[in-house]
Amino acid sequence: MKIYKYPSKKTFKEIMQRSVINSNEIFTDVRKILVDVKTNGDAAVKKYSQKFDQVAPSLEIGITQKEIKEAKKKIPNDLKEAINVAFANISKFHSSQLIKTEKIETTNGVICWQKYVPIENVGLYIPGGTAPLLSTLMMLAIPAKIAGCKNLVVCTPPKSDGSVDQAMLYLLDYFKIENAFKVGGAQAIAAMAYGTESISKMDKIFGPGNQYVTAAKQLVSLDNTAIDMPAGPSEVAIIADETANPGFVAADFLSQLEHGADSQAIIITDSKKLLDATIIEIEKQQAVLSRKKLIEKAAQKSSIVLLENKEDILNFVNDYAPEHLIISTKENKFYIENIKNAGSVFIGNYTPESAGDYASGTNHTLPTNGAAKAYSGLSTLSFMKAITFQEISKTGIKKLGQTIEILAETEQLQAHKNAVTIRLKQIENEKLS
Amino acid sequence: MKIYKYPSKKTFKEIMQRSVINSNEIFTDVRKILVDVKTNGDAAVKKYSQKFDQVAPSLEIGITQKEIKEAKKKIPNDLKEAINVAFANISKFHSSQLIKTEKIETTNGVICWQKYVPIENVGLYIPGGTAPLLSTLMMLAIPAKIAGCKNLVVCTPPKSDGSVDQAMLYLLDYFKIENAFKVGGAQAIAAMAYGTESISKMDKIFGPGNQYVTAAKQLVSLDNTAIDMPAGPSEVAIIADETANPGFVAADFLSQLEHGADSQAIIITDSKKLLDATIIEIEKQQAVLSRKKLIEKAAQKSSIVLLENKEDILNFVNDYAPEHLIISTKENKFYIENIKNAGSVFIGNYTPESAGDYASGTNHTLPTNGAAKAYSGLSTLSFMKAITFQEISKTGIKKLGQTIEILAETEQLQAHKNAVTIRLKQIENEKLS
Repeated sequence: MKIYKYPSKKTFKEIMQRSVINSNEIFTDVRKILVDVKTNGDAAVKKYSQKFDQVAPSLEIGITQKEIKEAKKKIPNDLKEAINVAFANISKFHSSQLIKTEKIETTNGVICWQKYVPIENVGLYIPGGTAPLLSTLMMLAIPAKIAGCKNLVVCTPPKSDGSVDQAMLYLLDYFKIENAFKVGGAQAIAAMAYGTESISKMDKIFGPGNQYVTAAKQLVSLDNTAIDMPAGPSEVAIIADETANPGFVAADFLSQLEHGADSQAIIITDSKKLLDATIIEIEKQQAVLSRKKLIEKAAQKSSIVLLENKEDILNFVNDYAPEHLIISTKENKFYIENIKNAGSVFIGNYTPESAGDYASGTNHTLPTNGAAKAYSGLSTLSFMKAITFQEISKTGIKKLGQTIEILAETEQLQAHKNAVTIRLKQIENEKLS
Repeated sequence: MKIYKYPSKKTFKEIMQRSVINSNEIFTDVRKILVDVKTNGDAAVKKYSQKFDQVAPSLEIGITQKEIKEAKKKIPNDLKEAINVAFANISKFHSSQLIKTEKIETTNGVICWQKYVPIENVGLYIPGGTAPLLSTLMMLAIPAKIAGCKNLVVCTPPKSDGSVDQAMLYLLDYFKIENAFKVGGAQAIAAMAYGTESISKMDKIFGPGNQYVTAAKQLVSLDNTAIDMPAGPSEVAIIADETANPGFVAADFLSQLEHGADSQAIIITDSKKLLDATIIEIEKQQAVLSRKKLIEKAAQKSSIVLLENKEDILNFVNDYAPEHLIISTKENKFYIENIKNAGSVFIGNYTPESAGDYASGTNHTLPTNGAAKAYSGLSTLSFMKAITFQEISKTGIKKLGQTIEILAETEQLQAHKNAVTIRLKQIENEKLS
């Protein structure tokens, strides 16, 4: 962890530097996998599962109802209850995101409107790794269901014995997801983007993953499959002043770092006292954590920054555009009003990032690596698209016709003009007859 | 133009086949331009302008206020008035797209909300070519202004004499856009994505273009700059029955084809009578159009399809997912309710596509090549992103704390759990003291 006291603006770039992801070599490797799966379907998928996930050649990729039924029995009641609470909160907030649109009469006789409709086929990728990412499945499946998506496909990498985590199976049943597959990595993204004998082609693919998954998502996005957003390593900025609790700040800092060796956390403060107290707290808390090695590695890219005042802090954070932003100050209102670039914001001493990671109701799939300057986090609308409609009466085209004719003529598009002229003539003829 | 009467489902794929865009060679060529501009800035931009747009080496790339002032005098009043009308309609519809969000209490003491904020830096690309695309600048600048984007940059290719169309200059003044550049092609996209001495780095790039521009946009989207959507050749599907006017249908069909040799139009009908009458009308109208060669070329990829009934037509269109959809039938309501995949829909005999291209109020930047299955057309929200906020009180974290702890523990994220536990302990301690 680096400590910067009143750094120059030149140093800012160094502090904000993220881990580099997706080298050209990764794109080259992943491109081969995509072409192979596109050409050879399930056979290629199975080949890569054997290679990367060390599963047996005999493994069936579809998750069966039998597996799901078995899992249901093994889930402890307190976990079931926690899932219920998180489900209720996430559902409530994401239901509020549905948009009611109205018809707008732009000119007398010219009616325009938007209609939000669900994307029909959505693929959800849930990473594997050491722990089951229950929360990721909830954060993707809940808005997909609220949006009304018809076909949900889930892909998640199996363990080498061919099994999938029990809690994950429980959630598949919870969300009535019937098309779930034991497939991970770039081969899973390829299967959902191009379709195979077992896995249908999806219109849009969602979910986080390692750099191979991310590269695969980026590449299929050039080839007729939409993706949620580019996803890189996780990060947090914490704005804290002398009213913040150093123990809480340290806990939030460390919880970010345990995500992975390439995670990043930056504490920004105008209080030297808070800075000193937080350093002590970080050392104390870190000592008893289990993922110590990971945290130490991530800490190398993380920092505490002392700045002059709230304006400097605001500018720093807007420039950094963090995925997560925690604000624990006496000036919370100032920051809430003026923050321009951030994925999700956590306000006050009693709002840890982990609340939003699991259960407050907001989505935890958020733009990283500065993408918050242009991207939103996932919402129910990410699973929908808007179709625009217009309906013009005879009165309307008589009013608007000349405008269209002049603009089409300026653009030298004669047939565009003619499509209006022929209608205006018809109306004129009707009047005469 | 091909005519299909009751084709088999197998033939559908052939009918719906779009022009192939962006071969690997184009990506390779464009990649070189991107790297060059990223490394050498303005010098590289100027080099490519000389090469591709045949401008003089002495050409300054910035559009000056002097040029704009000169242009203002030369615009005819009827064009000024047409711009005013289109501006009013497009502004009215796009203003209605701003979203009011509200605070949601998901659990007692847990408040979540979204805030839509403008993307600060947006780059607008306006293609050149034979005619000035006035309407494109309007369709991009109006929602950008309504969204509240702070910095707008416009790039448009100059003619070989270094000039830019007068009407385009007039619009730059109309929208008070001060940062406009005479730069086109992949080099323009590179300049806005990476920044040069003259052109600032943008957060998101909008606008249509040829296959080099499209490839450049796709490639920068892998490298930290957002783009509006993948854009391919323009297309329309026209659903018409015996109540449609064959002359209008033919005019709409032809107006699509004049966009370019790779444009596509498909008429789908259940009326043999309408089919026959439309063929005659197309031949008649086509004979007097100026862009005949272009239209003949595009017609080769276009078709009229006769199907059994409205259900078959609906399924065909949802599968095709057209950029534009015109519906002129006695069953308009059925189609409006059931259409799932389309960019923009034009309803009834008096709603030509050209109305939406210019002045009805809807945006004409729309998903092509089947992308309407997952993408919306441009709207005001395309120029904004949503930040989520959450604020949890002591009561809230006491209610929600255990849920978060259990879920974090299931995911083996001890530090995530600890960020809650330390707060719950503090509340407990306060109670005791």
